Amino acid sequence: MPRVGFVLKVKASLIEEYRRRHREVWPEMLAALGEAGWHNYSLFMSDDGLLFGYFETPVSFDAARAAMDATDVNARWQAEMSSFFEIPPGAHPDQMMVPLEEVFHLD
Amino acid sequence: MPRVGFVLKVKASLIEEYRRRHREVWPEMLAALGEAGWHNYSLFMSDDGLLFGYFETPVSFDAARAAMDATDVNARWQAEMSSFFEIPPGAHPDQMMVPLEEVFHLD
Repeated sequence: MPRVGFVLKVKASLIEEYRRRHREVWPEMLAALGEAGWHNYSLFMSDDGLLFGYFETPVSFDAARAAMDATDVNARWQAEMSSFFEIPPGAHPDQMMVPLEEVFHLD
Repeated sequence: MPRVGFVLKVKASLIEEYRRRHREVWPEMLAALGEAGWHNYSLFMSDDGLLFGYFETPVSFDAARAAMDATDVNARWQAEMSSFFEIPPGAHPDQMMVPLEEVFHLD
């Protein structure tokens, strides 16, 4: 199953609030992610807000993202999240995720 | 099973060589990692050398690292790798991995 790694940057002033929101992700959002093929999905954050995402998907990063883009709940979630990231104003964070190259894997 | 995320920084001048080495990791090193509890282990790298590691382990990051530290092959591997990273001269990269906080997980 393809593995995806991506990075984003959380604004320093919003790190604690980002943590809090992610302890309470809406059940509807969790269900939509699973249905869109986001499996074994983790987010890791450094003290300075560097955010790393990892997930496994039966499709590709682009296809998994497109499947989420097609849901209403993702539009609502990303609208709330967009202010948390160091990205151009108005951009949606799921469009700003920078995919990383997998350079090594061991099962 | 605990999930671990960590970051390191590869020197810009050595990114291509880092990629090459990781297409040819010694079989003895792969076997040692598995025996030390490093499972589903991936390394992702950005264009500028930011390196993100993800693995799952039945123990903890510290215990998995200690188990590798106890092997001869890891000492040889880390000696070859130490010059690739932006860390203090002489330090071993596996001691400089910065563990990240997991702020979200969805199975």
